[in-house]
Amino acid sequence: MNKAAKIGFIGTGIMGGPMAGHLQKAGYSLRVFNRTREKTQNLIEGGAVWCDSPAAAARGAEVVFSMVGFPSDVESVILGENGVLSAAAPGTILIDLTTSEPALARKIYQAARAKNVGSLDAPVTGGDQGARNATLSIMAGGDREDFERARLLLEAMGKTVRYVGPAGAGQHTKMVNQILVAGIMTSMAEAFTYAKKAGLDLPTVLELVGNGAAGSPVLNRLGPRIIAGDWEPGFIIEHYIKDMTIALREAAAMNLELPTLSLARERYAAVAAAGYGRKGTQAIVKVEGHEAGVEF
Amino acid sequence: MNKAAKIGFIGTGIMGGPMAGHLQKAGYSLRVFNRTREKTQNLIEGGAVWCDSPAAAARGAEVVFSMVGFPSDVESVILGENGVLSAAAPGTILIDLTTSEPALARKIYQAARAKNVGSLDAPVTGGDQGARNATLSIMAGGDREDFERARLLLEAMGKTVRYVGPAGAGQHTKMVNQILVAGIMTSMAEAFTYAKKAGLDLPTVLELVGNGAAGSPVLNRLGPRIIAGDWEPGFIIEHYIKDMTIALREAAAMNLELPTLSLARERYAAVAAAGYGRKGTQAIVKVEGHEAGVEF
Repeated sequence: MNKAAKIGFIGTGIMGGPMAGHLQKAGYSLRVFNRTREKTQNLIEGGAVWCDSPAAAARGAEVVFSMVGFPSDVESVILGENGVLSAAAPGTILIDLTTSEPALARKIYQAARAKNVGSLDAPVTGGDQGARNATLSIMAGGDREDFERARLLLEAMGKTVRYVGPAGAGQHTKMVNQILVAGIMTSMAEAFTYAKKAGLDLPTVLELVGNGAAGSPVLNRLGPRIIAGDWEPGFIIEHYIKDMTIALREAAAMNLELPTLSLARERYAAVAAAGYGRKGTQAIVKVEGHEAGVEF
Repeated sequence: MNKAAKIGFIGTGIMGGPMAGHLQKAGYSLRVFNRTREKTQNLIEGGAVWCDSPAAAARGAEVVFSMVGFPSDVESVILGENGVLSAAAPGTILIDLTTSEPALARKIYQAARAKNVGSLDAPVTGGDQGARNATLSIMAGGDREDFERARLLLEAMGKTVRYVGPAGAGQHTKMVNQILVAGIMTSMAEAFTYAKKAGLDLPTVLELVGNGAAGSPVLNRLGPRIIAGDWEPGFIIEHYIKDMTIALREAAAMNLELPTLSLARERYAAVAAAGYGRKGTQAIVKVEGHEAGVEF
């Protein structure tokens, strides 16, 4: 992919915005579309061309990225009317960075191949911070040759960029990540509630356990926010519920029970019902603490 | 504590052995007792005095450490016949490093104080590796002045050494750690099983998720062992079940439900029932995978 290549980028929010910015800094010409136009402002000041539909962003682009919210959004911006695929020229590569459904990734791949368009499902992990610092892990499914053609673009946005298998494998790999997060989050809620009930000093406890085997980037990033009573999102609860729902559906299709994940989804549903659906995933501690009689 | 001080050390296994070794290297004279005498060999070659009971190890010692298996062992070596407290002189400090019960820690503290002996409950986290490298986190409950007197000894064995509150608070803090571990372990079992069912390449998946937000020292240490089919213990399942049982009992006493921890104990009970009680905690993946129809 040489630097003269035009790149379409759809979805320039908390994650997509800084990721597109890295491509721009690397010298690529961007064609951008976002539901809320204001969120493209920085990119446009940097030289990106505003496009008023996903199809328009795809016109003349060699690669088109999407980083949107829900699988229904992915389906709409790629397969819908005025979607990317309605305008993508043969030889284009579509790369969906959204965490979405393996089955939808395969459907998009088939629809794209029928038009001689390539397709990768390439969800990411590492959060808003990883997006800003270009330290994301990116896990790509699809045809290996498409991955190799797009590799430099992905490496401009991530630190650990890997091909993981055929269409849908990127999403499956991301589901593995989200399954791991489930137990970290529910245990964190239980651990903080226990600590507060036992009368322990939370910053000291966090320092001790955060440096030990039970530490994790999640704990060390969210623990201080919990102690500060900061429930603003790094990662939005509604999005995490979406991911867990996908993972449980995929697991069921493989005849697999995931009790920790089921428990986490159930508990996050209660957190959302308590009004925290647009807050960060750490708000589980506030709601569960309250139920247990301790206030965070 | 000057370097002429004699230090009793009871329990010189996977954890206690290297920890006592750090004290020896720092110049202190050790008096050691262990159920299996052979495990004191290295220390004795380094100049430690073999003692044939906990009481004997306590004689003439200014500080007496214990690092044994179960709360019943702690009770026996400290409060039992020929236990440490039967021989400890006034002014001695007992420091139990075992992960044990907050209530037992308070009982020992009271019994010790009645003889003008100090007592700290100071469990650790960081595993066998942390013990060997002196990078443990050590969380001490008891009287602050006893902690300050013993601080240099603790700092010879750990990197993050903190006073956390009155007798029992060290154990409570360790329970917070073990609660956090529960969800990490059950999620890891579910994540590996899902990955294998989905046909993913496990080393690639581990590299991607291990570098992301869901990574943890536990995952990055145990993941490669799981992939290699190595079930030997860093941390023994029977000991972890003991810890979870203590935490659930303490939580119940505070009128607190911990569903993730309950789930983890239930699942580890099944893993132990399958014959893996003396294997490492990572063996949960082998047993759960087998139940789900995939072999690790």
